[in-house]
Amino acid sequence: MHSKLLEQLIQSLRCLPGVGPKSAQRMALHLMERNRNGAAQLSEVLREALDRLGRCGQCRALTEEPVCRLCSNPARDQSLLCVVGSPADMFAIEQAGSYRGLYFLLSGHLSPIDGIGPQEIGVDELMALLDSRPVQEVILANNPTVEGEATACYISGLLENREVAVSRIAHGVPVGGELEYVDGGTLSHAFNGRLRLR
Amino acid sequence: MHSKLLEQLIQSLRCLPGVGPKSAQRMALHLMERNRNGAAQLSEVLREALDRLGRCGQCRALTEEPVCRLCSNPARDQSLLCVVGSPADMFAIEQAGSYRGLYFLLSGHLSPIDGIGPQEIGVDELMALLDSRPVQEVILANNPTVEGEATACYISGLLENREVAVSRIAHGVPVGGELEYVDGGTLSHAFNGRLRLR
Repeated sequence: MHSKLLEQLIQSLRCLPGVGPKSAQRMALHLMERNRNGAAQLSEVLREALDRLGRCGQCRALTEEPVCRLCSNPARDQSLLCVVGSPADMFAIEQAGSYRGLYFLLSGHLSPIDGIGPQEIGVDELMALLDSRPVQEVILANNPTVEGEATACYISGLLENREVAVSRIAHGVPVGGELEYVDGGTLSHAFNGRLRLR
Repeated sequence: MHSKLLEQLIQSLRCLPGVGPKSAQRMALHLMERNRNGAAQLSEVLREALDRLGRCGQCRALTEEPVCRLCSNPARDQSLLCVVGSPADMFAIEQAGSYRGLYFLLSGHLSPIDGIGPQEIGVDELMALLDSRPVQEVILANNPTVEGEATACYISGLLENREVAVSRIAHGVPVGGELEYVDGGTLSHAFNGRLRLR
Protein backbone atom coordinates (compact mmCIF):
# COMPACT_ATOMS: atom_id res chain seq x y z
CA MET A 1 0.00 0.00 0.00
CA HIS A 2 3.04 2.32 0.20
CA SER A 3 3.74 4.40 -2.88
CA LYS A 4 6.23 2.90 -5.32
CA LEU A 5 9.06 5.24 -4.37
CA LEU A 6 8.52 4.78 -0.63
CA GLU A 7 8.50 1.01 -1.15
CA GLN A 8 11.79 1.34 -3.06
CA LEU A 9 13.30 3.34 -0.19
CA ILE A 10 12.20 0.67 2.31
CA GLN A 11 13.79 -2.02 0.14
CA SER A 12 17.04 -0.04 -0.20
CA LEU A 13 17.30 0.38 3.57
CA ARG A 14 17.24 -3.39 3.92
CA CYS A 15 20.82 -3.52 2.64
CA LEU A 16 21.81 -2.36 6.15
CA PRO A 17 22.85 -5.23 8.44
CA GLY A 18 20.23 -6.25 10.99
CA VAL A 19 17.45 -4.28 9.31
CA GLY A 20 14.31 -6.28 8.49
CA PRO A 21 11.09 -5.13 6.79
CA LYS A 22 9.60 -3.53 9.94
CA SER A 23 12.74 -1.57 10.86
CA ALA A 24 13.24 -0.51 7.25
CA GLN A 25 9.70 0.86 7.14
CA ARG A 26 10.22 2.68 10.42
CA MET A 27 13.49 4.16 9.16
CA ALA A 28 12.00 5.26 5.83
CA LEU A 29 9.00 6.92 7.49
CA HIS A 30 11.19 8.57 10.10
CA LEU A 31 13.57 9.97 7.48
CA MET A 32 10.82 11.25 5.21
CA GLU A 33 8.48 12.58 7.92
CA ARG A 34 10.83 13.89 10.57
CA ASN A 35 14.42 14.11 9.44
CA ARG A 36 14.81 15.13 5.81
CA ASN A 37 18.02 17.01 6.62
CA GLY A 38 19.54 13.89 8.10
CA ALA A 39 18.44 11.89 5.07
CA ALA A 40 19.98 14.40 2.67
CA GLN A 41 23.24 14.32 4.57
CA LEU A 42 23.24 10.53 4.68
CA SER A 43 22.69 10.34 0.93
CA GLU A 44 25.55 12.75 0.25
CA VAL A 45 28.05 11.24 2.69
CA LEU A 46 27.28 7.75 1.35
CA ARG A 47 28.01 8.99 -2.18
CA GLU A 48 31.25 10.63 -1.09
CA ALA A 49 32.35 7.59 0.92
CA LEU A 50 31.73 5.33 -2.08
CA ASP A 51 33.78 7.62 -4.29
CA ARG A 52 36.68 8.25 -1.95
CA LEU A 53 37.03 5.49 0.68
CA GLY A 54 39.64 2.96 -0.35
CA ARG A 55 42.14 0.77 1.44
CA CYS A 56 45.26 1.91 3.25
CA GLY A 57 48.25 0.83 1.13
CA GLN A 58 49.89 -0.64 4.21
CA CYS A 59 47.37 -2.11 6.67
CA ARG A 60 44.36 -2.32 4.29
CA ALA A 61 42.04 -0.41 6.65
CA LEU A 62 39.34 1.78 5.08
CA THR A 63 40.62 5.31 4.54
CA GLU A 64 40.40 8.14 2.02
CA GLU A 65 44.17 8.70 2.22
CA PRO A 66 46.86 6.56 0.51
CA VAL A 67 48.19 5.49 3.93
CA CYS A 68 45.95 5.66 7.01
CA ARG A 69 46.60 7.88 10.03
CA LEU A 70 47.55 4.92 12.18
CA CYS A 71 50.18 3.55 9.79
CA SER A 72 51.66 7.01 9.19
CA ASN A 73 51.91 7.76 12.91
CA PRO A 74 55.63 7.65 13.83
CA ALA A 75 54.76 7.17 17.51
CA ARG A 76 53.46 3.63 16.84
CA ASP A 77 55.82 0.75 17.50
CA GLN A 78 56.98 -0.29 14.00
CA SER A 79 58.30 -3.63 15.21
CA LEU A 80 54.88 -5.04 16.20
CA LEU A 81 52.25 -6.08 13.64
CA CYS A 82 48.84 -7.25 14.77
CA VAL A 83 46.84 -9.29 12.24
CA VAL A 84 43.03 -8.93 12.56
CA GLY A 85 40.10 -10.25 10.53
CA SER A 86 37.84 -7.18 10.44
CA PRO A 87 37.97 -3.39 10.90
CA ALA A 88 35.63 -3.76 13.89
CA ASP A 89 38.18 -6.03 15.62
CA MET A 90 40.89 -3.46 14.90
CA PHE A 91 38.69 -0.76 16.41
CA ALA A 92 37.99 -2.86 19.52
CA ILE A 93 41.73 -3.39 20.10
CA GLU A 94 42.40 0.34 19.61
CA GLN A 95 39.61 1.16 22.07
CA ALA A 96 41.22 -1.11 24.67
CA GLY A 97 44.17 1.26 24.38
CA SER A 98 47.08 -0.95 25.42
CA TYR A 99 48.42 -1.97 22.00
CA ARG A 100 50.77 0.57 20.40
CA GLY A 101 52.02 -1.27 17.32
CA LEU A 102 50.75 -1.48 13.74
CA TYR A 103 47.94 -3.54 12.22
CA PHE A 104 47.27 -5.64 9.19
CA LEU A 105 43.68 -6.19 8.20
CA LEU A 106 42.69 -9.46 6.54
CA SER A 107 39.37 -9.52 4.65
CA GLY A 108 37.75 -12.05 6.95
CA HIS A 109 39.04 -15.56 7.43
CA LEU A 110 39.96 -18.55 5.31
CA SER A 111 36.90 -20.57 4.38
CA PRO A 112 37.72 -23.04 1.59
CA ILE A 113 34.12 -24.29 1.56
CA ASP A 114 33.00 -20.80 0.44
CA GLY A 115 35.90 -20.48 -2.02
CA ILE A 116 37.76 -18.03 0.24
CA GLY A 117 41.47 -18.83 0.03
CA PRO A 118 44.65 -16.94 1.07
CA GLN A 119 44.54 -14.63 -2.01
CA GLU A 120 40.99 -13.52 -1.26
CA ILE A 121 41.73 -12.39 2.29
CA GLY A 122 45.02 -10.63 1.50
CA VAL A 123 47.72 -12.99 2.76
CA ASP A 124 49.99 -12.02 -0.18
CA GLU A 125 49.86 -8.36 0.85
CA LEU A 126 50.73 -9.38 4.41
CA MET A 127 53.83 -11.22 3.17
CA ALA A 128 54.83 -8.24 1.00
CA LEU A 129 54.43 -5.93 3.99
CA LEU A 130 56.65 -8.18 6.13
CA ASP A 131 59.29 -8.10 3.38
CA SER A 132 59.35 -4.31 3.33
CA ARG A 133 59.01 -3.37 7.02
CA PRO A 134 61.19 -3.96 10.08
CA VAL A 135 58.58 -6.10 11.87
CA GLN A 136 59.93 -8.23 14.72
CA GLU A 137 56.74 -9.79 16.03
CA VAL A 138 53.49 -10.75 14.32
CA ILE A 139 50.58 -11.00 16.76
CA LEU A 140 47.74 -13.12 15.36
CA ALA A 141 44.48 -11.66 16.71
CA ASN A 142 42.10 -13.57 14.46
CA ASN A 143 38.74 -14.44 16.00
CA PRO A 144 38.73 -17.52 18.24
CA THR A 145 36.36 -19.32 15.84
CA VAL A 146 37.14 -22.38 13.73
CA GLU A 147 37.86 -20.20 10.67
CA GLY A 148 39.86 -17.70 12.71
CA GLU A 149 41.99 -20.46 14.26
CA ALA A 150 42.56 -22.02 10.85
CA THR A 151 43.64 -18.68 9.43
CA ALA A 152 46.01 -18.00 12.33
CA CYS A 153 47.42 -21.50 11.97
CA TYR A 154 47.94 -21.06 8.21
CA ILE A 155 49.72 -17.72 8.59
CA SER A 156 51.92 -18.99 11.39
CA GLY A 157 52.94 -21.84 9.04
CA LEU A 158 53.85 -19.37 6.28
CA LEU A 159 56.02 -17.41 8.71
CA GLU A 160 57.93 -20.45 9.94
CA ASN A 161 61.10 -19.78 7.95
CA ARG A 162 61.19 -16.05 8.53
CA GLU A 163 63.19 -14.11 11.08
CA VAL A 164 60.09 -12.96 12.93
CA ALA A 165 58.43 -13.92 16.21
CA VAL A 166 54.82 -15.08 15.89
CA SER A 167 52.31 -15.02 18.74
CA ARG A 168 48.61 -15.63 19.20
CA ILE A 169 46.47 -13.57 21.60
CA ALA A 170 45.60 -15.47 24.77
CA HIS A 171 42.30 -17.32 25.06
CA GLY A 172 40.85 -17.75 28.52
CA VAL A 173 38.30 -16.59 31.02
CA PRO A 174 37.14 -13.01 30.25
CA VAL A 175 38.07 -10.43 32.89
CA GLY A 176 35.08 -9.79 35.15
CA GLY A 177 33.40 -13.02 33.99
CA GLU A 178 32.23 -15.75 36.33
CA LEU A 179 33.67 -19.23 35.91
CA GLU A 180 30.20 -20.68 36.42
CA TYR A 181 28.99 -19.16 33.14
CA VAL A 182 32.07 -19.74 31.00
CA ASP A 183 31.78 -22.44 28.32
CA GLY A 184 33.87 -25.62 28.35
CA GLY A 185 36.05 -24.72 25.35
CA THR A 186 37.10 -21.45 26.95
CA LEU A 187 37.79 -23.16 30.28
CA SER A 188 40.01 -25.77 28.57
CA HIS A 189 41.92 -22.95 26.86
CA ALA A 190 42.25 -21.16 30.21
CA PHE A 191 43.77 -24.29 31.80
CA ASN A 192 46.06 -25.11 28.88
CA GLY A 193 47.30 -21.52 28.68
CA ARG A 194 47.78 -21.07 32.45
CA LEU A 195 50.59 -18.81 33.61
CA ARG A 196 53.02 -19.88 36.30
CA LEU A 197 52.93 -17.35 39.17
CA ARG A 198 56.00 -18.62 41.06
CA MET B 1 40.88 6.07 14.94
CA HIS B 2 38.56 5.79 11.91
CA SER B 3 39.42 7.99 8.96
CA LYS B 4 37.60 11.34 8.86
CA LEU B 5 35.24 10.32 6.06
CA LEU B 6 34.40 6.96 7.65
CA GLU B 7 33.69 8.77 10.92
CA GLN B 8 31.41 11.14 9.03
CA LEU B 9 29.54 8.20 7.50
CA ILE B 10 29.09 6.62 10.94
CA GLN B 11 27.72 9.92 12.28
CA SER B 12 25.32 10.28 9.33
CA LEU B 13 23.94 6.78 9.87
CA ARG B 14 22.98 7.78 13.40
CA CYS B 15 20.10 9.84 11.99
CA LEU B 16 18.30 6.48 11.56
CA PRO B 17 15.94 5.69 14.43
CA GLY B 18 17.24 3.11 16.90
CA VAL B 19 20.82 3.28 15.58
CA GLY B 20 23.49 4.00 18.21
CA PRO B 21 27.26 4.36 17.77
CA LYS B 22 27.95 0.60 17.66
CA SER B 23 25.24 -0.20 15.09
CA ALA B 24 26.21 2.82 12.99
CA GLN B 25 29.83 1.60 12.89
CA ARG B 26 28.69 -1.89 11.96
CA MET B 27 26.47 -0.50 9.19
CA ALA B 28 29.19 1.77 7.80
CA LEU B 29 31.79 -1.02 7.72
CA HIS B 30 29.29 -3.46 6.21
CA LEU B 31 28.30 -1.01 3.45
CA MET B 32 31.90 -0.07 2.60
CA GLU B 33 33.45 -3.54 2.90
CA ARG B 34 30.72 -5.84 1.66
CA ASN B 35 27.88 -4.07 -0.06
CA ARG B 36 28.95 -1.05 -2.06
CA ASN B 37 26.20 -1.68 -4.60
CA GLY B 38 23.57 -1.56 -1.87
CA ALA B 39 25.12 1.63 -0.51
CA ALA B 40 25.10 3.26 -3.95
CA GLN B 41 21.46 2.33 -4.43
CA LEU B 42 20.52 3.59 -0.97
CA SER B 43 22.23 6.92 -1.62
CA GLU B 44 20.40 7.35 -4.94
CA VAL B 45 16.97 6.27 -3.73
CA LEU B 46 17.29 8.54 -0.68
CA ARG B 47 18.08 11.46 -2.97
CA GLU B 48 15.15 10.65 -5.24
CA ALA B 49 12.77 10.17 -2.32
CA LEU B 50 13.78 13.53 -0.87
CA ASP B 51 13.18 15.22 -4.20
CA ARG B 52 9.91 13.55 -5.10
CA LEU B 53 8.08 12.23 -2.02
CA GLY B 54 5.44 14.67 -0.86
CA ARG B 55 2.05 14.42 0.77
CA CYS B 56 -1.13 13.09 -0.83
CA GLY B 57 -3.43 16.08 -1.40
CA GLN B 58 -6.27 14.20 0.20
CA CYS B 59 -5.12 11.90 3.02
CA ARG B 60 -1.66 13.44 3.59
CA ALA B 61 0.15 10.10 3.26
CA LEU B 62 3.65 10.10 1.76
CA THR B 63 3.51 9.65 -2.01
CA GLU B 64 5.22 10.86 -5.17
CA GLU B 65 1.83 11.37 -6.88
CA PRO B 66 -0.56 14.29 -6.28
CA VAL B 67 -3.16 11.89 -4.84
CA CYS B 68 -2.10 8.52 -3.43
CA ARG B 69 -3.15 5.16 -4.85
CA LEU B 70 -5.43 4.46 -1.92
CA CYS B 71 -7.37 7.72 -2.20
CA SER B 72 -7.69 7.39 -5.96
CA ASN B 73 -8.94 3.80 -5.75
CA PRO B 74 -12.67 3.88 -6.66
CA ALA B 75 -13.20 0.52 -4.94
CA ARG B 76 -12.65 2.07 -1.49
CA ASP B 77 -15.73 3.06 0.49
CA GLN B 78 -15.87 6.86 0.10
CA SER B 79 -18.30 7.26 2.99
CA LEU B 80 -15.84 6.08 5.67
CA LEU B 81 -12.86 8.13 6.83
CA CYS B 82 -10.40 6.73 9.32
CA VAL B 83 -8.23 9.28 11.17
CA VAL B 84 -4.78 7.98 12.21
CA GLY B 85 -1.76 9.58 13.84
CA SER B 86 1.07 8.06 11.80
CA PRO B 87 1.74 6.33 8.46
CA ALA B 88 2.79 3.21 10.38
CA ASP B 89 -0.66 3.04 12.03
CA MET B 90 -2.28 3.40 8.61
CA PHE B 91 -0.11 0.59 7.31
CA ALA B 92 -0.99 -1.65 10.27
CA ILE B 93 -4.74 -1.12 9.65
CA GLU B 94 -4.27 -1.85 5.93
CA GLN B 95 -2.34 -5.01 6.77
CA ALA B 96 -5.22 -6.19 8.99
CA GLY B 97 -7.25 -6.06 5.79
CA SER B 98 -10.76 -5.57 7.10
CA TYR B 99 -11.10 -1.78 6.64
CA ARG B 100 -12.10 -0.69 3.12
CA GLY B 101 -12.68 3.05 3.54
CA LEU B 102 -10.39 6.07 3.20
CA TYR B 103 -7.84 7.52 5.60
CA PHE B 104 -6.73 10.85 6.91
CA LEU B 105 -3.26 11.11 8.35
CA LEU B 106 -2.60 13.53 11.19
CA SER B 107 1.03 14.49 11.87
CA GLY B 108 1.13 12.94 15.32
CA HIS B 109 -1.07 14.04 18.17
CA LEU B 110 -1.93 17.24 20.01
CA SER B 111 0.66 18.08 22.61
CA PRO B 112 0.26 21.69 23.82
CA ILE B 113 3.23 21.31 26.16
CA ASP B 114 5.48 20.81 23.10
CA GLY B 115 3.73 23.60 21.17
CA ILE B 116 1.89 21.13 18.93
CA GLY B 117 -1.62 22.45 18.34
CA PRO B 118 -4.41 21.61 15.84
CA GLN B 119 -2.73 23.52 12.97
CA GLU B 120 0.52 21.63 13.38
CA ILE B 121 -1.05 18.20 13.05
CA GLY B 122 -3.35 19.05 10.13
CA VAL B 123 -6.81 19.40 11.69
CA ASP B 124 -7.66 22.23 9.27
CA GLU B 125 -6.99 19.98 6.29
CA LEU B 126 -9.21 17.33 7.87
CA MET B 127 -12.08 19.80 8.13
CA ALA B 128 -11.55 20.96 4.53
CA LEU B 129 -11.63 17.34 3.38
CA LEU B 130 -14.88 16.70 5.24
CA ASP B 131 -16.38 19.79 3.55
CA SER B 132 -15.49 18.51 0.10
CA ARG B 133 -16.18 14.76 0.32
CA PRO B 134 -19.32 12.68 0.96
CA VAL B 135 -18.04 11.23 4.24
CA GLN B 136 -20.74 9.73 6.46
CA GLU B 137 -18.64 8.35 9.31
CA VAL B 138 -15.34 9.47 10.80
CA ILE B 139 -13.55 6.67 12.65
CA LEU B 140 -11.01 8.02 15.14
CA ALA B 141 -8.15 5.53 15.28
CA ASN B 142 -5.68 7.67 17.21
CA ASN B 143 -3.35 5.81 19.54
CA PRO B 144 -4.80 4.89 22.93
CA THR B 145 -2.30 7.14 24.71
CA VAL B 146 -3.06 10.32 26.65
CA GLU B 147 -2.17 12.49 23.62
CA GLY B 148 -4.09 10.22 21.24
CA GLU B 149 -7.19 10.29 23.42
CA ALA B 150 -6.97 14.09 23.74
CA THR B 151 -6.67 14.43 19.96
CA ALA B 152 -9.62 12.10 19.35
CA CYS B 153 -11.67 14.00 21.92
CA TYR B 154 -10.77 17.37 20.36
CA ILE B 155 -11.71 16.26 16.84
CA SER B 156 -14.94 14.69 17.99
CA GLY B 157 -15.80 18.05 19.61
CA LEU B 158 -15.12 19.90 16.32
CA LEU B 159 -17.41 17.51 14.46
CA GLU B 160 -20.32 17.92 16.89
CA ASN B 161 -22.39 20.21 14.68
CA ARG B 162 -21.75 18.37 11.44
CA GLU B 163 -23.95 15.84 9.69
CA VAL B 164 -21.44 13.05 10.20
CA ALA B 165 -21.24 10.03 12.50
CA VAL B 166 -18.14 9.91 14.68
CA SER B 167 -16.77 6.71 16.22
CA ARG B 168 -13.68 5.64 18.14
CA ILE B 169 -12.02 2.25 17.66
CA ALA B 170 -12.77 -0.16 20.51
CA HIS B 171 -10.33 -0.52 23.39
CA GLY B 172 -10.27 -3.82 25.22
CA VAL B 173 -8.49 -7.10 25.70
CA PRO B 174 -6.31 -7.98 22.65
CA VAL B 175 -7.40 -11.07 20.73
CA GLY B 176 -5.26 -14.02 21.78
CA GLY B 177 -4.15 -12.22 24.95
CA GLU B 178 -4.51 -13.61 28.44
CA LEU B 179 -6.56 -11.67 30.99
CA GLU B 180 -3.93 -12.38 33.61
CA TYR B 181 -1.35 -10.26 31.77
CA VAL B 182 -3.60 -7.40 30.66
CA ASP B 183 -3.10 -4.08 32.47
CA GLY B 184 -5.77 -2.48 34.63
CA GLY B 185 -6.56 0.40 32.27
CA THR B 186 -7.25 -1.98 29.39
CA LEU B 187 -9.40 -4.20 31.60
CA SER B 188 -11.47 -1.19 32.74
CA HIS B 189 -11.96 -0.22 29.09
CA ALA B 190 -12.95 -3.81 28.26
CA PHE B 191 -15.60 -3.77 30.99
CA ASN B 192 -16.93 -0.31 30.17
CA GLY B 193 -17.13 -1.13 26.47
CA ARG B 194 -18.71 -4.58 26.92
CA LEU B 195 -21.12 -5.77 24.22
CA ARG B 196 -24.50 -7.26 25.13
CA LEU B 197 -24.73 -10.76 23.63
CA ARG B 198 -28.46 -11.32 24.23
